Parts: sequence; C-alpha cells; structure tokens
Amino acid sequence: MNRREFNLNLLCAAGAIVAHSPQSPSQLRVNGRRVNDHLRELSEFGKNPQGGVSRLAYSESDLKGRDYAMGLMREAKLDVSVDAAGNIVGRRAGADASLKPLVIGSHIDSVPEGGNYDGDAGSMGAIEVAQTLAENNVALRHPLEVIIFQNEEGGTIGSHAIAAGLTEKELNLVTNSRKTIREGIKFIGGDPDKLAGVVRKPGDIAAYLELHIEQGGVLYSEKISIGVVEGIVGINWWDVTVEGFANHAGTTPMNQRRDALLAAAKYVEAVNRVVTSVPGRQVGTVGKIQAFPGAYNVIPGKVTTSLGLRDLDAAKTRMLFEKILLEVQQIEKTTGTKFEFKQTNSTPPAPTDVRVRRVIDEAAKQLGFTTKFMPSGAGHDAQEMARLGPVGMIFVPSVDGVSHSPREFSRPEDVTNGTNVLLHALLKLDSMKLTD
Amino acid sequence: MNRREFNLNLLCAAGAIVAHSPQSPSQLRVNGRRVNDHLRELSEFGKNPQGGVSRLAYSESDLKGRDYAMGLMREAKLDVSVDAAGNIVGRRAGADASLKPLVIGSHIDSVPEGGNYDGDAGSMGAIEVAQTLAENNVALRHPLEVIIFQNEEGGTIGSHAIAAGLTEKELNLVTNSRKTIREGIKFIGGDPDKLAGVVRKPGDIAAYLELHIEQGGVLYSEKISIGVVEGIVGINWWDVTVEGFANHAGTTPMNQRRDALLAAAKYVEAVNRVVTSVPGRQVGTVGKIQAFPGAYNVIPGKVTTSLGLRDLDAAKTRMLFEKILLEVQQIEKTTGTKFEFKQTNSTPPAPTDVRVRRVIDEAAKQLGFTTKFMPSGAGHDAQEMARLGPVGMIFVPSVDGVSHSPREFSRPEDVTNGTNVLLHALLKLDSMKLTD
Repeated sequence: MNRREFNLNLLCAAGAIVAHSPQSPSQLRVNGRRVNDHLRELSEFGKNPQGGVSRLAYSESDLKGRDYAMGLMREAKLDVSVDAAGNIVGRRAGADASLKPLVIGSHIDSVPEGGNYDGDAGSMGAIEVAQTLAENNVALRHPLEVIIFQNEEGGTIGSHAIAAGLTEKELNLVTNSRKTIREGIKFIGGDPDKLAGVVRKPGDIAAYLELHIEQGGVLYSEKISIGVVEGIVGINWWDVTVEGFANHAGTTPMNQRRDALLAAAKYVEAVNRVVTSVPGRQVGTVGKIQAFPGAYNVIPGKVTTSLGLRDLDAAKTRMLFEKILLEVQQIEKTTGTKFEFKQTNSTPPAPTDVRVRRVIDEAAKQLGFTTKFMPSGAGHDAQEMARLGPVGMIFVPSVDGVSHSPREFSRPEDVTNGTNVLLHALLKLDSMKLTD
Repeated sequence: MNRREFNLNLLCAAGAIVAHSPQSPSQLRVNGRRVNDHLRELSEFGKNPQGGVSRLAYSESDLKGRDYAMGLMREAKLDVSVDAAGNIVGRRAGADASLKPLVIGSHIDSVPEGGNYDGDAGSMGAIEVAQTLAENNVALRHPLEVIIFQNEEGGTIGSHAIAAGLTEKELNLVTNSRKTIREGIKFIGGDPDKLAGVVRKPGDIAAYLELHIEQGGVLYSEKISIGVVEGIVGINWWDVTVEGFANHAGTTPMNQRRDALLAAAKYVEAVNRVVTSVPGRQVGTVGKIQAFPGAYNVIPGKVTTSLGLRDLDAAKTRMLFEKILLEVQQIEKTTGTKFEFKQTNSTPPAPTDVRVRRVIDEAAKQLGFTTKFMPSGAGHDAQEMARLGPVGMIFVPSVDGVSHSPREFSRPEDVTNGTNVLLHALLKLDSMKLTD
C-alpha cells in the first residue's frame, strides 16, 4: 500500500483503540481540580515570602521542583528520564512505533521573584494530559513525549540544546543562579559531555504543543478563554556598559563631570522614546542597572545596564536598534562617556504552524470556548521546537496581564480549560498526517 | 598675674624651650622623603588591582592600615591609644598642662575604588609633623594630639563621635563594609558601650588643623601650592526608592508599564537639570543605582538610588531639594511610580576660623608658597571638630582634580609643602592665645 493508504489504515487503527476506552475521545476531560492542586504543590519549591517563587534554573528549589514533577510523570505512567542536557523527558509508546513523537511540555524554572504560572501551567497541564490518557486507556498512534525543559528563563537553554545544540560559549554563560550553564546541567543530572546525543533534526518530531499563560492582559481584558498563538516574537538582549570617569562628588564641578549614570539615564529614556516612536506591538526594556563604585559621594565612573528588544518582525527590531545607537552617539558626545553593546541573546521570530493553529482553534471551539489569534510577546520553548517540526501554542488569560511577578495569577478554570484544549488538540494532531 | 600676663609668660617659656633645639623653629622642615615613603607604604593596605585602594572603614585592610599608622605614631614618640569610638589618638605632652590640646589629623579609610591621598596625605603629614617635633626636641606649650579618625568616608563618623556623639540610629547604619557602625567600632578596637567618654565639649580643644588634598582641580590648574580653606560645604545625602510594578518585559505593552527604572532615569536627569539651573558652586550627584529584580526580561518594579547635594549655603541646598521634589511629583504622575526620600546624612556648612586661616596663609607665604582662599566641596573631619574650637584646613593640589578614584594623585613635593605648612601653622598657633 502507498503512504497515504498506510496513514488511513493507522487512522482506523487509532480509532479502534480509542473506542475500547470507556468513553469516546470527544468526551474526555482532564481532572481540573488535580492539575490546579499540582500547581499549588509545585509553588512550594522556591516560594517567595511575598508570594510567587524564585525557582531559578539550577538552584536547590529547581532541583526539588524537578523531583516533584518527575514523581507526577511516573504516576501518569510515563517512562521518565533526564537527558544529557538536563531536560526531563517522559515517554509513552504509540501504536505506530514508526511515527515521530508528538511532544507536549513547558518549563518549571522561574525568573527571580517570579510567579506560579509561567511555565508551570503548561508543565502541569502536559502531565495532566498524559495522566488523563493513561487513566482512560487511550492509546495514541504517535509516541508521546512530555518534556519539562530546563532553564527556559535564561534563554530557552534546554529546548535549544535539543533543537540546535549548545555552543561552548553558551555552556560558559553564568546564569542567575551564579552557575554556568555547564555547571547547571551537571547539577540537575545532565552530562555536558554528551550533549550531541540530545540534538534532534528537523522532522524528528511530529508536532509540538505548549500550553502557557498569556503573560499579557489581552485575553483577560477582552474576556476571551483561549489564545491561539500566531508566532513568538524575536528576542534580542544586550549587555550595555557605560564608561565615564569616577571622581569626587563634592569637589568636581558639574561642568567637569563625565558621569556614567547621567549618560545611562539618558540612554534609558532614549530606549523608551525610540521604541514608542513608531506604531506597532514592539517592546524595548532596560531591566538591569548598577552604578560603580556605587557610593553617595562618588560620581559613577561606570554603569552596567542592559537592553531587550522584541518584535515579530526582525527587520523592525534591527531598525529600532540602529535608532538607539544613533541616540547613544549623541549621549556619548554630550556626557563625555563611552557605550559598549554586547549581544547576549538573539532569537529570531518563530511563526507557529498554520495547521496546528487551526487544530487548536477547532478544539477550543468544540469545547465551547471563545478564541483569539495573537502573537506571543514572550519567548517560549516552542520557538526552539519550531526548528524540528510544526508547533502550536495555547494561551490562557493572565489576570490583569501580570507576569514575572509574585502577583502573576491565572484562574483555576482557565488553567483547566487550557489543559482540555491541549488534550483535544493533541488528539486531533494524533489523527492527522503531520509529516510527508 | 592676670590671664593676659599668664599667657605672655607662657609665650616666653615656649620660646625658651624651642631655643634649646638645635635650630630655630622657623628653619624647621619636615622630612619630605619620609612622609612620601609612608604614603607609599600605607597604599599597600587594600590595594586595588588597577591602583589606588579600597580600604573601606571596618574592613580587614582598614585594620592593617591602622596598625601601620599606629606603628609610625609610636616611632614619632606619641602615646598611642584607640578611643572608645575607634579613633586612633596619639598624645604628646605640652609645657603647660592647663592648656587644651592642639589637634592635627585626618583619616585613612577610603571609598570603594578610591585613591592613595584622600585622608592619607593629612594622616601621614600629621604623623610626620609629630616626628619632626620629636626629632628636633621641640616642646610645644599646648599638648598635641594626632588623631586618625575612623570612617570619614561613611559620614565623618569618628570625628562626629568626638564632637557630638553617635546616636543609636547612627550606630545601626550599615556601612560599605556591610558592618553596622556599632559592629565596625568593635571590629577596630573601640567599645560602643563607652562612647559617652569620648564626647568633647566646645572649648575642649585649642584648635584643629587638617592637611588634605584639594580633590578638585582649582589649585592644580591655577598652579598654586597651598589652598587656605574658608569653609566646608554642607553635605546632604538621601536614600531614594522608586516603586513601580514588575512585569514581563515581552508581554506588557509600552503604554501599560509602570517602569521604576524609566522613572529613576528621569529623576537622575532632573537632579542634573535642577542643580545646574542656578549659578554657583553647588553640586548634586546620584552615585548609587540598582534595579530589582534586575533581569533582561523583567520590567523593573523597584529601583534604589541616592541623592547628594552640597553647598556652603544651607538655604540654597534646601531650595534645590524642593525643586527636585517638584520634578519628582511630575515623574510620579507620568510613569505611575512612587518615590520615597530618606535623608541619611545632613551635615551643615562649617566655616573655618578666620584667625586660623590667616595663620595658615602666613605660614605658607613665609615658606615661599603661593596661596588661595577657597571653599572645600568635600566633607572633612574638620567640619565636626569645628564644633569644639577654631579649625583650619590646608589644601594641596590634586593632579587633574581627580579624587575618589585610583587615578587620584598629588605630587610628592606638594605633599611635602603641605606638611611643612601644617608644621609651621601649628607652631604659630602654639604661640597664640586661642581661648578666652
């Protein structure tokens, strides 16, 4: 038989297997209470005094959270292992071993003083989907992999290791936990010397699906249940150093200063001005700053700061960066300082797969939810996985659009809804011919 | 005999004692090579890789520097002790035990990444004067005290303990060495429970003289040898906190942000604008800044920064601060943030004594040096000692006006000249009736 007939046969086989379960697939629902309980339990690891978590990748709390997640994955009858890059992979066999796996997952590391939903919702949601399939004896045609990617917040490191591989330079980067990525991978049970073994090729996955909170306020303010993500904006980060001249703050007249902080202040304002000078959804952020030596009575001789630019259009990002550099040249002249930009992250925009978007939209609508097609302003492991095959993302509302903050919150019903959409989009994808 | 006759008699007695030394007092000179050698040796304690020192008060390097200074003081035949506040006091008896002491001194603690002359020149200079007196068997009428004040850079703490006393609040302040002042005093051999014993009353000193580098570029650029200080500007420091709202840098649209760092940047610019908006020698500095949580991908929810304002006119400083607060109100409105100012230091302007200025000017001119009357933009222990009696300060040039920096430099000949002026101003003061 030809390839098409083969696939049709498999479709029938899958249908047959599902029919043996106590209910029809379209009636399957995840256990909403359980997934929200798991989220609450996970939030204990790295808990902040003021709420939320600081579960930095490669920290003790990260390790504890990972142990917790692996326990849940085993309960969901997944075959759990930690790959050489430190990602947690839970496998479930499919009816057709010749098919590439369908992958679902997210991450459980957080930013410093982060919240309890970013990454966690998609991770607990993916495990819940596997648990629901197991409890209902639903066999899929495709093998299933649930992956908890390591260090998403530090630059989608775990998924990058799978989709492209990590360079020596990346392995030597120091992360927020003060470990290098290499040290971090060892710390969480990976093996930096065997990273080549985890790299996959385009076509090695049937599809990747990720449930995530929106982290912005669009769905919440428009009262929409499910966001169908059109793509993930490109992300560019720079370390910025401003060199002035340290001098005594009492004896150096105002007009004889080369104040690195005054220059940095003008730079922070320039970034805001340039980014808001053109229409669109681009964002520009200066998130870090520190003055040296950092005393009341010394004019700062040096400032270290940062730049982050994001947009779906890489050309627009380049244009904004050029405009910022032009402003910086003026600042250097008027303040007698010198700026240096060192790019530390450059992730191109990643569109999601048109078919997968449609599958998510249909699954959501069949479950009775309102949907909206939208870009993702945040980076996600999905953008890495897009190198390997078709990807899609499901967003659920963030109350008040708050994220990367202890106040981050998604309502339990929204988490449940998103997990049900993840389940049904997965079932739909399983029945499709995804590779040629 | 009346008080006047008594003083005249003492003058004669002093003259007689001096006459026994091998040379007449006007021909006395300090050992310039030795004082510069001592400066070089002192610079080893807390040495920065890039030059200069980070000899923070209450650090290990501070302790070692203090041990070194105490050794030199003993060689200069001073009776050395550490007072309850941690100041090093070297005493030398005078011919008339009923007279209050003449005090000379400075400090040896530095700012982070500071230089080798600020405080050190005056400290080594004062010890050199004592050594010169000892070597030449010159007895003074007044008792002499050489004091190395502790923690000048953290707000003239040691001299404040002597001149006014330290409050509980001051003792609990955390300094740059991360110790509280209380912990620091214990660390350097003082006793925070016995601070009352070190406080002196107005009239308890005959006079105080301090040699110091200018720390600005006036003497150097005008090629003048000696600055006669007219007064020390008032110093005001504030800790400034900016509260915004931490949120995801990718998903939060530019117009929905409450970015504490953007607000802080506008504040830094406003301080510069306000301070330079009126004529005069006032200075305003923002020396510290840090953003929290401090990550590429989080809009800063909080920024801690500072403010320093200095002028000889306290009313002008108040006016500038009010103007800055008005600007801050506007910034709060446009950025949706909240500022808080907490004053951590408020030292009023301290004029020097008119007679002591004249004595310094005469001594310098008799030694053949050019002089200039000028204010001090930097705070000094002299401003504290001004509460207890007449004070004067001798400035020597700072090359390029650089200070509070590893590049701080004063030429050896200028250090020697200043030390000779200190010696001769002291001899002149010793012959005068300083208290009524």
